[in-house]
Amino acid sequence: MTATSPRLKHEVKDLGLAALGRQRIEWAGREMPVLRQIRDRFAQEKPFAGIRLVACCHVTTETAHLAIALKAGGADAVLIASNPLSTQDDVAASLVADHEIPVFAIKGEDNETYNRHVQIALDHRPNIIIDDGCDVVASLVQKRQHQLADIIGTTEETTTGIVRLRAMFRDGVLTFPAVNVNDADTKHFFDNRYGTGQSTLDGIIRATNVLLAGKNVVVVGYGWCGKGTALRARGLGANVIVTEIDPIRAIEAVMDGFRVLPMEQAAPQGDLFITVTGNKHVIRGEHFDVMKDGAIVCNSGHFDIELDLVALGSKAKEVKTVRPFTQEYRLQNGKSVVVLGEGRLINLAAAEGHPSAVMDMSFANQALGCEYLVKNKGNLEPGIHSIPTEVDQDIARLKLQAMGIKIDTLTEDQIEYTNSWTSGT
Amino acid sequence: MTATSPRLKHEVKDLGLAALGRQRIEWAGREMPVLRQIRDRFAQEKPFAGIRLVACCHVTTETAHLAIALKAGGADAVLIASNPLSTQDDVAASLVADHEIPVFAIKGEDNETYNRHVQIALDHRPNIIIDDGCDVVASLVQKRQHQLADIIGTTEETTTGIVRLRAMFRDGVLTFPAVNVNDADTKHFFDNRYGTGQSTLDGIIRATNVLLAGKNVVVVGYGWCGKGTALRARGLGANVIVTEIDPIRAIEAVMDGFRVLPMEQAAPQGDLFITVTGNKHVIRGEHFDVMKDGAIVCNSGHFDIELDLVALGSKAKEVKTVRPFTQEYRLQNGKSVVVLGEGRLINLAAAEGHPSAVMDMSFANQALGCEYLVKNKGNLEPGIHSIPTEVDQDIARLKLQAMGIKIDTLTEDQIEYTNSWTSGT
Amino acid sequence: MTATSPRLKHEVKDLGLAALGRQRIEWAGREMPVLRQIRDRFAQEKPFAGIRLVACCHVTTETAHLAIALKAGGADAVLIASNPLSTQDDVAASLVADHEIPVFAIKGEDNETYNRHVQIALDHRPNIIIDDGCDVVASLVQKRQHQLADIIGTTEETTTGIVRLRAMFRDGVLTFPAVNVNDADTKHFFDNRYGTGQSTLDGIIRATNVLLAGKNVVVVGYGWCGKGTALRARGLGANVIVTEIDPIRAIEAVMDGFRVLPMEQAAPQGDLFITVTGNKHVIRGEHFDVMKDGAIVCNSGHFDIELDLVALGSKAKEVKTVRPFTQEYRLQNGKSVVVLGEGRLINLAAAEGHPSAVMDMSFANQALGCEYLVKNKGNLEPGIHSIPTEVDQDIARLKLQAMGIKIDTLTEDQIEYTNSWTSGT
Amino acid sequence: MTATSPRLKHEVKDLGLAALGRQRIEWAGREMPVLRQIRDRFAQEKPFAGIRLVACCHVTTETAHLAIALKAGGADAVLIASNPLSTQDDVAASLVADHEIPVFAIKGEDNETYNRHVQIALDHRPNIIIDDGCDVVASLVQKRQHQLADIIGTTEETTTGIVRLRAMFRDGVLTFPAVNVNDADTKHFFDNRYGTGQSTLDGIIRATNVLLAGKNVVVVGYGWCGKGTALRARGLGANVIVTEIDPIRAIEAVMDGFRVLPMEQAAPQGDLFITVTGNKHVIRGEHFDVMKDGAIVCNSGHFDIELDLVALGSKAKEVKTVRPFTQEYRLQNGKSVVVLGEGRLINLAAAEGHPSAVMDMSFANQALGCEYLVKNKGNLEPGIHSIPTEVDQDIARLKLQAMGIKIDTLTEDQIEYTNSWTSGT
Repeated sequence: MTATSPRLKHEVKDLGLAALGRQRIEWAGREMPVLRQIRDRFAQEKPFAGIRLVACCHVTTETAHLAIALKAGGADAVLIASNPLSTQDDVAASLVADHEIPVFAIKGEDNETYNRHVQIALDHRPNIIIDDGCDVVASLVQKRQHQLADIIGTTEETTTGIVRLRAMFRDGVLTFPAVNVNDADTKHFFDNRYGTGQSTLDGIIRATNVLLAGKNVVVVGYGWCGKGTALRARGLGANVIVTEIDPIRAIEAVMDGFRVLPMEQAAPQGDLFITVTGNKHVIRGEHFDVMKDGAIVCNSGHFDIELDLVALGSKAKEVKTVRPFTQEYRLQNGKSVVVLGEGRLINLAAAEGHPSAVMDMSFANQALGCEYLVKNKGNLEPGIHSIPTEVDQDIARLKLQAMGIKIDTLTEDQIEYTNSWTSGT
Repeated sequence: MTATSPRLKHEVKDLGLAALGRQRIEWAGREMPVLRQIRDRFAQEKPFAGIRLVACCHVTTETAHLAIALKAGGADAVLIASNPLSTQDDVAASLVADHEIPVFAIKGEDNETYNRHVQIALDHRPNIIIDDGCDVVASLVQKRQHQLADIIGTTEETTTGIVRLRAMFRDGVLTFPAVNVNDADTKHFFDNRYGTGQSTLDGIIRATNVLLAGKNVVVVGYGWCGKGTALRARGLGANVIVTEIDPIRAIEAVMDGFRVLPMEQAAPQGDLFITVTGNKHVIRGEHFDVMKDGAIVCNSGHFDIELDLVALGSKAKEVKTVRPFTQEYRLQNGKSVVVLGEGRLINLAAAEGHPSAVMDMSFANQALGCEYLVKNKGNLEPGIHSIPTEVDQDIARLKLQAMGIKIDTLTEDQIEYTNSWTSGT
Repeated sequence: MTATSPRLKHEVKDLGLAALGRQRIEWAGREMPVLRQIRDRFAQEKPFAGIRLVACCHVTTETAHLAIALKAGGADAVLIASNPLSTQDDVAASLVADHEIPVFAIKGEDNETYNRHVQIALDHRPNIIIDDGCDVVASLVQKRQHQLADIIGTTEETTTGIVRLRAMFRDGVLTFPAVNVNDADTKHFFDNRYGTGQSTLDGIIRATNVLLAGKNVVVVGYGWCGKGTALRARGLGANVIVTEIDPIRAIEAVMDGFRVLPMEQAAPQGDLFITVTGNKHVIRGEHFDVMKDGAIVCNSGHFDIELDLVALGSKAKEVKTVRPFTQEYRLQNGKSVVVLGEGRLINLAAAEGHPSAVMDMSFANQALGCEYLVKNKGNLEPGIHSIPTEVDQDIARLKLQAMGIKIDTLTEDQIEYTNSWTSGT
Repeated sequence: MTATSPRLKHEVKDLGLAALGRQRIEWAGREMPVLRQIRDRFAQEKPFAGIRLVACCHVTTETAHLAIALKAGGADAVLIASNPLSTQDDVAASLVADHEIPVFAIKGEDNETYNRHVQIALDHRPNIIIDDGCDVVASLVQKRQHQLADIIGTTEETTTGIVRLRAMFRDGVLTFPAVNVNDADTKHFFDNRYGTGQSTLDGIIRATNVLLAGKNVVVVGYGWCGKGTALRARGLGANVIVTEIDPIRAIEAVMDGFRVLPMEQAAPQGDLFITVTGNKHVIRGEHFDVMKDGAIVCNSGHFDIELDLVALGSKAKEVKTVRPFTQEYRLQNGKSVVVLGEGRLINLAAAEGHPSAVMDMSFANQALGCEYLVKNKGNLEPGIHSIPTEVDQDIARLKLQAMGIKIDTLTEDQIEYTNSWTSGT
């Protein structure tokens, strides 16, 4: 199933898929004008000449463009999957065959293979790590103390990864700079909200083909991903219930017109449950017990532990696949619960992940975040750093320009007014 | 590619797909409680004993349940595709292999095969025709005058088919009763609006994976299908422009918050165009000329003539497939136009058609419409008949019950008030 | 409080308000271009020369334009209020003082005065009656048999009035033609939905100044008025619950994303209740009993009997006005219920009724409906007649034109296609 | 028009309005459970004993509750208006007559009176200033250097005021701590978004009674206030155009489905313009020139300089009042522009300001912000301080509790997971 060429090590499903992958990568490129401009500049300036780089990402058509841009900038880059179920095998094949980028990623790989790929990536002795969920960095810190000297820094894509990096920093083990890509406005405003929103519902519909209109949809968590998911579920006609642990987000959901309930009250009412919390076991045994017969549960948070599938499994008489990515757990209580995508990110398991148009900005942040680390090598404190505001604004400006949208600029008079405090009522 | 058994003629892609089809049909059944109840009653009452029936439908998991219900009611039924691109080959296989229903339908069949299947169906000498777009009835009237004596009546599923039947009636060639299933509230309110709405956007996203948020989406036609499509496009974050020819629908679209423009002004602004008019050539050569580079066009109306693809083709230097169901026309003017699903119903070409939950009501109307024809054989005038209001209301009542939703009933006092006209201010 | 001039009988609050009324009438005229064009034509053609006309309407700035148009057309018209609480006294004054139209209407008039005004109107011996809720026609039929010979016909504005006319026709007492203005698409699509929607919420906010966002709003009835009210309540951030007696409308509400409950379950959950059913006592004693402390109830249906205020009053220890149009019923169970506008149409009691832009189309239908009656005098059967489709379409076309909105027209090719039934797949 | 009692100096319109004010204040209290709890605690703990306090606020029913709570806490408080047009005279009267709080505020007072009231307030030699737009603090710093020693600190309510305080801090003149109430999540998420959203549209409808459905509404600025305004305008059926100067906010508006245009392109398309930028002259002469005849403009930002009314006035042949708070500028170019509320905050000029339910949280932040200043007297650096997160969360928790809404809490297991970084894929 995997292959090794003399000049290029890799593990992908089937190099024969490269043509399809090439076609799909090309298609995605149409909606990624910002990253294209960055790649063109990188190709001239070669900011990553001599830099070994590991990118741990969902291996999608959009990630392909990031990898190609980094390579154009001179990086000696290796790409691995950030999730066992999210790899698009045709894309992996094309990156190897058409772009000579070493990829180690196969859709459906088991956890052992996943972890082996992480170690292969670390064997590359990276100077820069692009991480998505912090698995590579966590492994580095735990097992490769001797490689820390190689590290210039890391960039992190997800809310989940940032939570882990903060915990590492608190524990004193984060000894190099980490760029918080997730924190950039041009990332989380768009990727987490509009990207997760559309692609999560897309994944659910592809997996089930159920009508959303009139369904009671329980969105677990009302962060940026939850907001986007709730908005799109409502946009498709669902009646949305939100559960939260944060009182401010809870009132926000109320004022946005959603019902807010604790999970124990939401569980018996929902037709469909979507977890987007970044936490673990937000739907547990006691909740599965009281669900309607045929309730559908899925996850769109980073890790596959938001649903307590172990608890669910222990209640099941039988588990059978009823459609691709759709498994029915027949419970001892006579009801059934339907689990999508084995509890992994449903938008990547059953659909194609975030649309290119949002990943364009997210990966522009990744590319510029890596450049920032390299340019400021030695000058950044260990710990978590934001993307500079100017970079964030520049990405937005390039994006608007590419969309053909013009906006206003401040007049001289207005700039002066903004800086003054003496004129009032 | 096709097969013939001694006891059962059929033409399907591959009987080996039956297992997958069976699984998917079973899944769809969960959301079709109304049709299930009707099937159970039919199995006892056998209303179609001795009746030869032809059903010309999109061969989907939902249609499977209709066919099974009719057969349970005693019908000697043959099923053919109502569209060359909409057949789900696994479903066709399962109906033949598991239910012994003769099916003549292969996804992607050419027009010649399509028409041959219509003739095979008519060779069955049907008493009842379930039609979807009026192709079988039109062929009957044109070529099989001698079979008219066999006919009890027809039922018609679509707006398009009803328009054709009305024209036939005007021309004096509709000499038997036709039940207007489309007209039932429990059909067009739900199927045309919520069904078309969700599944059209689903088809577009599966075909392209583009982000809808922030796109200018032009919805051509603001009938029930157009209303649903516009609503869901907005629900996914698009900025929707509507074009219309009817002034009342046009103001309705304005008041619903959409921009209304004539097509010549909409054409240069749209990122994505969706036709749902039932008419022909609603996007023509002069419109393709002024579209943005990379504009995407597709159709969700019944026939594949809403887009003038002949005109588009004549302007193209090159046509290439860039993703499944996605073709790029590179024009002589240097821009490109992307056509989805060859201009056929995008929800059936690139996705799975309407979700089961709406087809449950539509096909309940079909099943009960056929029963109504049989029960009233000889008593119905030639022409177009509505589904009786009580049938419509009963379907709604069964559906609510199945969804676990209770509603109010009138008190004695209120009934009396409704019937009186004497009490006022 | 009332006044009589030698040359003009009338009963209005204060002629001194005429200047304010004139200003406000002029303002409303900006959004009524269709009625303005009709008035200009009437002024030339004088279709109502020699016709005695009674208009029973909410006396608002928009009604003023209708009355002025009718008078311009030669009508000898008398205007009375269709509701004791809906009269705008400044408008009534201006119509008398500036336009010499006899008006009998005072905001807050008691039921006795209201009924006396109906009799004054009938004393005018009308040939045409414009009715709004059917009070004048009902009185005519009950008490003025001898005047029936004068009658050319009536036009009716409301769903409620049409229900009464249908009952009258069933009982054989409707012996002249009645034009169903409410049924025109350019009336009920816009007036009942967008007009009632906005103005009902406007009335509630003016009466209470409560935040809608996050409130549980129970909309009782999901006809056109209910649909508009539910849509606007959601548009302001409320979580909307719908109650219904019709199963089809109930599923429609479900698919639109609302919760549907029987009133007994909705009553304890609602923060605000709005009735729009056209029926009586849709919120009754048993419902008031279980409401939250401080629940707010109001009505936007035609008559003031949708709330059973007699039952509520019998449960109250004390009733006090807590803001204008806002009364608190302190119940014996220790909780309170707040009633707005005494249960009368809240949009007219506490706000200014429908915005001019929708009344423009409604009253265009009224004006043209009256002209239709006169032109077809003697040729229309007794019973209920629709506004001709062409008239409906013309109104829509004039409106679009006035809004500066262009739409498409069918090509020759498309017209031919629409009329043909032979071309199919 | 003003009055002075022996024991209490004040300037209000008419003490005779106190009864109405008392009634309305009481009504508002129903939706302010959080501030009520704070007031009850203050009454026991007297945190402001011996403290002289000046509150410069919109004198509304909600502000009344803040003033009463501060007085209950022992404050020697004086209240002045923060805007010449926003005072509710009945509330001012009740605060004086019923609560013995000195108020200096009259609706419609001229700028001279406004400034005189600021000086009267400063004559009170405040220790704490609650400011709304920074007028009192700016005057203090410019004219009362000798009083700086009295100052413990200030709290600021608005985005505008914070911008001014930042400029003051940059210029080195802010020598005491300022608590940024606006920055609290329980303030700006709710007040600026849902409060401004509903009340701005409310003000516009009361001033004009125009139908929003189908109108092109231009929202100038897409900060929190702009987001809320755009959302509610769309919720009422408008087609919303957004203008911005910030590229990130601009794309956010695009992705939210709005059209984004520079003002020069938006100006000729809008039917209604609403400014919410905090900047000056965002609609200027060149924009008024190209507007449609009859375009309506208004402001919901803090100061009345967002519209360049001087430029507009210079183009006008005539200015006349066409409804209360509604003035028509008849321009030399033959068209007219309608200005609402003289360009002052339309929600306070023509309606009643933010609903109590949001001000409950905003003013809870004000009350607790003042307490925080007093408790930390001498320990806070000069400059701008946030409301502590715990305070913010507590307010949200109290609010949810008062609304009867329960939320989830983290399990032990989840807390541990959140703090750990070792478990990954």
